[in-house]
Amino acid sequence: MAKNTVGVIGGGQLARMMIPPAIELGVDIRVLEEAEGMSAELAATAVGDYRDLDTVLAFAETVDVITFDHEHVPPAILRELVNRGVQVHPGPDALLYAQDKLQMRAKLTELGLPVPDWAAVESAEDLGAFLDDHGGRAVVKTARGGYDGKGVRVVSDAAGADDWFLALAEDGRGGALLVEELVSFQRELAQLIARRPSGQTAVWPVVETVQRDGVCAEVIAPAPGSSERVVEVAAEIARRIADGLGVTGVLAVEMFETTDGRVLVNELAMRPHNSGHWSIEGAVTSQFEQHLRAVLDLPLGAPDARDDWSVMVNILGGPSEGTLQDRYPAALAAHPEAKFHGYGKDPRPGRKVGHVTVTGDDLDDVVYRARAAAAFFEG
Amino acid sequence: MAKNTVGVIGGGQLARMMIPPAIELGVDIRVLEEAEGMSAELAATAVGDYRDLDTVLAFAETVDVITFDHEHVPPAILRELVNRGVQVHPGPDALLYAQDKLQMRAKLTELGLPVPDWAAVESAEDLGAFLDDHGGRAVVKTARGGYDGKGVRVVSDAAGADDWFLALAEDGRGGALLVEELVSFQRELAQLIARRPSGQTAVWPVVETVQRDGVCAEVIAPAPGSSERVVEVAAEIARRIADGLGVTGVLAVEMFETTDGRVLVNELAMRPHNSGHWSIEGAVTSQFEQHLRAVLDLPLGAPDARDDWSVMVNILGGPSEGTLQDRYPAALAAHPEAKFHGYGKDPRPGRKVGHVTVTGDDLDDVVYRARAAAAFFEG
Repeated sequence: MAKNTVGVIGGGQLARMMIPPAIELGVDIRVLEEAEGMSAELAATAVGDYRDLDTVLAFAETVDVITFDHEHVPPAILRELVNRGVQVHPGPDALLYAQDKLQMRAKLTELGLPVPDWAAVESAEDLGAFLDDHGGRAVVKTARGGYDGKGVRVVSDAAGADDWFLALAEDGRGGALLVEELVSFQRELAQLIARRPSGQTAVWPVVETVQRDGVCAEVIAPAPGSSERVVEVAAEIARRIADGLGVTGVLAVEMFETTDGRVLVNELAMRPHNSGHWSIEGAVTSQFEQHLRAVLDLPLGAPDARDDWSVMVNILGGPSEGTLQDRYPAALAAHPEAKFHGYGKDPRPGRKVGHVTVTGDDLDDVVYRARAAAAFFEG
Repeated sequence: MAKNTVGVIGGGQLARMMIPPAIELGVDIRVLEEAEGMSAELAATAVGDYRDLDTVLAFAETVDVITFDHEHVPPAILRELVNRGVQVHPGPDALLYAQDKLQMRAKLTELGLPVPDWAAVESAEDLGAFLDDHGGRAVVKTARGGYDGKGVRVVSDAAGADDWFLALAEDGRGGALLVEELVSFQRELAQLIARRPSGQTAVWPVVETVQRDGVCAEVIAPAPGSSERVVEVAAEIARRIADGLGVTGVLAVEMFETTDGRVLVNELAMRPHNSGHWSIEGAVTSQFEQHLRAVLDLPLGAPDARDDWSVMVNILGGPSEGTLQDRYPAALAAHPEAKFHGYGKDPRPGRKVGHVTVTGDDLDDVVYRARAAAAFFEG
């Protein structure tokens, strides 16, 4: 009988958004959630700590394939799963490069892929030297644990990361920080790709992402006004990373399009990603359906866009009082064409609690309507 | 706080297909299934007999609104729910006309809507008289309990329904059979409409349905080559029925387009319907999302088609060995553009176990591909 049960570690909105395509395809989906009542509650069959080997092993025994809502499962646990014959996608050897930014930068450099100038720095002196070589300003990132702008900081003097160096020293593991040139970019792009264990890949149109305070605010698919070269380069970079790192499932490559026309790799995520939420309505195959197909090693679906334009706007924070649903009567009445997504999370400042997608053939109109519809859920 | 929990009585594929839009909208969905392991298992919070008042009452206490996967809940139970203040959509006064074809025919006739010639017959003599007046052939239907061609029979002599008359007599309830003229139709149409308790309606494009052995086999949206008059008449009929009967939620009106150009109402279903499955991918708002909005009395979404053509082909019976999933590697590889839907049901001859939808701008091509994709799951 065909493998058909996908186990997702982590109960956040990415796991949640895998449930609809699982239901549609007839795939059995089960979730190990961190606590009761999380976003993916409906498919939760276990509650526990993903850093606990026994918890993860017990969950793995109930499914055919393990995949993830996030990249935080410790490598040692992933390796133990693989040693015991569990199908894990993406596997620990690939996931490492999404878990550790220093490893990622080193690997991409080895593969000859375009990245910002970077260095591993272990002291204020190292950092000072990098700053001296790069015009006195740079971006410092913790190698592990950062997301949504956390663990990322622009510094302009050698002492600017002293607290992080101290934390690394106190942590006892030692290790270095990543420092990168401050890239002068005209915009940020994201290229999503899916790859099966057997090697087939599928590439969605490259998109433009708009960040606010380090958090994704909007995504426009495809990235407006892209030259043919940028479209090709973005896809080729994603293919080379997916193949070179042996990624299975969905890979998101966040990129800078620089003011001098280069495309540089910024970050990687090895799972469905905020930059791909537009694909639920906007593509023939959504990133969530594709991820399920990929981790089950099923043939991938067509990633083509269904409309000229798709615009996704995040609902950040949500209503200052009440729930998203309290705003539905007004929002749905004003925007019968918009697709509203709620993640079942309580509103909290800055928290991603939902998103809105609008598709159509007039970009200005689509952007306007997506923003207007999302605005009903804030303030 | 806004009402947000929808309870669905019945755990079949219609309940199953309400789950994805519930997750997307952030609506809490709960299902009372007839037995464990049904299609809508993932959202099942209760297992029991929908003909048992206590079972239904206990389930109703856990939700804000009751709606249905099917029309078989006894009217007495529905009325008791309403008497106790439970929101029930569609309500018993409307649902009656989907439960009892004689009541339906009488009501539509009273509303002046176009229906085939019909009569309530209580004996072979009555039936014979109708046959004499209608060219010697007619369609006999049991008033209650029929679906997918069951409870429907073409007769050409007065004794042709004697077994059903006997069954009615033995049942002790008495009652009549419905007899209708055998309509000479060029094709069958279905008009879906959604209506909120507060009265707003939304009408999808009228579709053509193709039946085989009394079971829906294919749906083409919109119905090809329809005259403007037919499109308007179909929508107007659906509006008058929805308003006239006080339907809440989705209503499907099955119709005949006769060889002499008339549109006659055949059957009603007060729930999402096989003729609307195309809307999952093919419309801005699917029938399942719209049903949730309607029963929660939320503003309806746009029912517009997203592509020139959407074709849905049912998977009837399924593979003679194994599961639908066993056929996925070949089917998905051949048809990356097709959307596959499995209902989590074991294959069985004639059983609806899934469907495939393809959309596009070339009707012949779309029909060909939808049929070809579905064919992978049969035989």
